[in-house]
Amino acid sequence: MAVLGCGNVGAALVDVLLRRGREIANRTGVQLELAGVAVADPQKPRPVDIAADLITSDASSLVGRSDVDVVVEVIGGLTPAQGLVEQALRAKRPVVTANKALLAVHGGELADIASANGVDLLYEAAVAGGIPLIRLLRESLAGERIVRVIGIVNGTTNFILTRMVEDATSYEDALAEAQRLGFAERDPTADVEGEDAAAKAAILAGLAFGADVAMDDVYREGITGLDKVDIETARQLGYVVKLLAVVELEPDGAVSARVHPAMIPATHPLASVRDAFNAVFVEGESSGELMLYGRGAGGDPTASAVLGDLIDAARNLQRGTAAPSPRIVPVAVRPIEELRCPYYLSLEAFDRPGVLAAVAAVFGAHGVSIRSMEQVGLGDEARLMFLTHEAREGDVRATLAELERLDEVDRVGGMLRVMVSNPSPSGDA
Amino acid sequence: MAVLGCGNVGAALVDVLLRRGREIANRTGVQLELAGVAVADPQKPRPVDIAADLITSDASSLVGRSDVDVVVEVIGGLTPAQGLVEQALRAKRPVVTANKALLAVHGGELADIASANGVDLLYEAAVAGGIPLIRLLRESLAGERIVRVIGIVNGTTNFILTRMVEDATSYEDALAEAQRLGFAERDPTADVEGEDAAAKAAILAGLAFGADVAMDDVYREGITGLDKVDIETARQLGYVVKLLAVVELEPDGAVSARVHPAMIPATHPLASVRDAFNAVFVEGESSGELMLYGRGAGGDPTASAVLGDLIDAARNLQRGTAAPSPRIVPVAVRPIEELRCPYYLSLEAFDRPGVLAAVAAVFGAHGVSIRSMEQVGLGDEARLMFLTHEAREGDVRATLAELERLDEVDRVGGMLRVMVSNPSPSGDA
Repeated sequence: MAVLGCGNVGAALVDVLLRRGREIANRTGVQLELAGVAVADPQKPRPVDIAADLITSDASSLVGRSDVDVVVEVIGGLTPAQGLVEQALRAKRPVVTANKALLAVHGGELADIASANGVDLLYEAAVAGGIPLIRLLRESLAGERIVRVIGIVNGTTNFILTRMVEDATSYEDALAEAQRLGFAERDPTADVEGEDAAAKAAILAGLAFGADVAMDDVYREGITGLDKVDIETARQLGYVVKLLAVVELEPDGAVSARVHPAMIPATHPLASVRDAFNAVFVEGESSGELMLYGRGAGGDPTASAVLGDLIDAARNLQRGTAAPSPRIVPVAVRPIEELRCPYYLSLEAFDRPGVLAAVAAVFGAHGVSIRSMEQVGLGDEARLMFLTHEAREGDVRATLAELERLDEVDRVGGMLRVMVSNPSPSGDA
Repeated sequence: MAVLGCGNVGAALVDVLLRRGREIANRTGVQLELAGVAVADPQKPRPVDIAADLITSDASSLVGRSDVDVVVEVIGGLTPAQGLVEQALRAKRPVVTANKALLAVHGGELADIASANGVDLLYEAAVAGGIPLIRLLRESLAGERIVRVIGIVNGTTNFILTRMVEDATSYEDALAEAQRLGFAERDPTADVEGEDAAAKAAILAGLAFGADVAMDDVYREGITGLDKVDIETARQLGYVVKLLAVVELEPDGAVSARVHPAMIPATHPLASVRDAFNAVFVEGESSGELMLYGRGAGGDPTASAVLGDLIDAARNLQRGTAAPSPRIVPVAVRPIEELRCPYYLSLEAFDRPGVLAAVAAVFGAHGVSIRSMEQVGLGDEARLMFLTHEAREGDVRATLAELERLDEVDRVGGMLRVMVSNPSPSGDA
């Protein structure tokens, strides 16, 4: 086998192969022999001790060598990864990759090339790092009708929200802490604006429903607009605020795909996913609720997922088979306005008689039914916080727009979707 | 394919096959055609509508029919399940079973027969119902060095403990409620004494470490001795009490396998596993912490796991391969006295000067170091509650034995092991 790339993940993988190759062979019956490691700069010092004759800067020659039967691509990015992966697949060598960007852009073509050549293209590590989500959805739940997948799939935002919920930190302070600790990039946009989570939501829709959903089809709302007062109010009401990636299959076959902060009941298993951990909650028609929890990133966990794929690919190669490839079909994507769930809304109004009546009238006019209301004085203003019954998002947005125009209202604050799915005990233990 | 047995799980499976067979074929490429369903009494009314010519009371003839290529065994128990499974395997027909009892008693022989005939014997549904644990351990983590598995694997006891923790219910009242709701048997011994969990711990040791651990090798302590005062104290200290099945690989290759109640930090993901849900927390050297959560029992979730295996078996059959079988080797099992962790201890003592000094002296004499102590008055007695630093269980037991003999001590109360593993944020998000 050949390893292309020796960064964080590549070094962790090579380390495991060198230290534990024999033990893995004993346990799994699969001999993983390292033929070479391709790197951009062979002189660069590396955290793992690799014999000099294994290192090469000529990745293409390494892929073409006759003693290479499986290729691991952990270079990342599009070039030269794309060309090397294609070269390997066309030479009927299975490829294991952890490259999310490559799959997001060229996943379809690469899958076709793999399929045409009858070899594996495996990418467990590309979706949720160390969480073996693909195997769960493709194999364990192969015959299951999945109706909903809810993921906490971005460690950076989950770390920031954990600080905001547990320490009542402001968004700015929590982000600064995340950057200081290495959980957030200097430019955190892709994480905090939900772009990374939206890419993963698109992949989840394919895995769960066989639905062809592009990243741009995913409704996206990040965490930059969150107010710590709303997070604290949610906490008092028994909820935790998390950034969720949700894909849902509707009865008519349409799919809802969205990324946004949401209020989760504190007793729900997703509420206990703290810091930079990830989790994916899957609801199947027969299986009921399932959740997978783990490290969504990091060299070692990602290398562990690559290794699982590698053993799979090697076994399939020995038997002359390949993993089944999923069928992806076009679907209708439901607009966010059609979403129905309970909502939390907050606003600041002038504290004078008749305000609540005026506000409540706006809710009523749009068919949004209020379940509970709380009012807190703020000098000559009051902060009003509402929980609605299940409502249509389009109606809630129209309500907010009209409230903004109301003389009595100074400022419309946060809007949070409330997750209602709460595992209930079944009759069997 | 043939389905043997049409109880809870069998009926749920047949229902899915009849309703969704075509959809499953479209999605997975696997055609699951029901050749027949073997039942003890063909006249008995069933929850699912099966054509009369599919039903037979002659299971052995059904297994032998030339149009049966895969056999699902969901009869349960040893006879006639064992004979039928053997018959199928010897005829080179893969078998999918959900029969924990059969595997616990004859698992080794059956695996040998399957292997000798080159066919699959798959049993995802037998271990943790709807939770796809076997695939996680055998495939996703195939190359991983797993160091610890901690499971909440018994829904009955988890339901009872959830009531005791959240509603301060007594054990007796919680058990009565569980029985009323159908979560506990009339004779709950196998569940509440930890026997069911110990059988699963033995299977977990095989899956995680390839270790041959028998059920009787597993140290076992149930929940019948739990005092609701200790559970409430644990809650105040920030812990939740759960019945855990734990298997650990020690650096020298020995294995610790045990079932007992334990105090888990309230922030740990296992603490959020409520009611009759199950979860298995896996710690791997590279993968870090992973958790699988779901329904451990029930007709539909178990049928969903059977279906996943069935599709796997059918795919392997098409390709002429079989799933890799694990290697199980004998290991040393560590005695419980060698366990090292922090402990919670409570006792009732006469409220007079010098008592704490006498008690503390006993701790000190056995090398058990006290981290914190709390005292509550109870008339002319006092309740003393201790948290120790990490200690050796043998020393803690010797401490308790000596405390029982102390004049100042009226009653030695509960002892709970405290789980320290707390996911810490890693440097990568």
